[in-house]
Amino acid sequence: MTDLRKTVETFWSAAEARDWTAFAGTLAEDVVYTLPQTREHIRGREKYVRFNREYPGDWHLRVERVVAEPGQAVSWLHFAVGLQEMYCITFFTADREGHIATVTDFWPEPYEPPAGREHLVERY
Amino acid sequence: MTDLRKTVETFWSAAEARDWTAFAGTLAEDVVYTLPQTREHIRGREKYVRFNREYPGDWHLRVERVVAEPGQAVSWLHFAVGLQEMYCITFFTADREGHIATVTDFWPEPYEPPAGREHLVERY
Repeated sequence: MTDLRKTVETFWSAAEARDWTAFAGTLAEDVVYTLPQTREHIRGREKYVRFNREYPGDWHLRVERVVAEPGQAVSWLHFAVGLQEMYCITFFTADREGHIATVTDFWPEPYEPPAGREHLVERY
Repeated sequence: MTDLRKTVETFWSAAEARDWTAFAGTLAEDVVYTLPQTREHIRGREKYVRFNREYPGDWHLRVERVVAEPGQAVSWLHFAVGLQEMYCITFFTADREGHIATVTDFWPEPYEPPAGREHLVERY
């Protein structure tokens, strides 16, 4: 059992460095990427690396938290593209060799809180 | 070290059952709830239980995945309120007694994929 936390850290540091060889090295050949919010899949290492390599914008990421157990992990990232800042939550599973087998991303956006809970909350 | 995975499972099953005594039993007295998308905090068990108890709508949840390690965990939920369906991603940390000390929720919404990646993706 390899350490999936370390693999996830390499995945993100390689993405930030645009080191697509190191990035591909973390992935299973039949990796499946899923974006539930847009209902998109990308199948296979080659297409998935290309998707990331071609992704537009001068994006930069910072890992806020990683939670890992044998076979699965989650990361919480801060993402910035110019002045736009976002969160990215990513679920990973690994194959038996410790390569990343599935990647599932969520990109939550800011919204205004509904009325009626001001007696309980503080804004920050 | 108590099992935070089990505590998180109890937290969600108690919420679904509206068993607010069992729900409160998973929480540290000084639990802090954070919603980064709205920049809201709720401080303390009493207010946080009340926030959940008062939350409007006939909501129902299903746990899709839990990832846990000593001291922290993440859950991925499917949430339904009538015909509206949502994802909820929640990061947890525990105190030394194994009670939930922080809860951070993300609620990602569906969106249309940007043009230019149709050569790589499948929709589902």
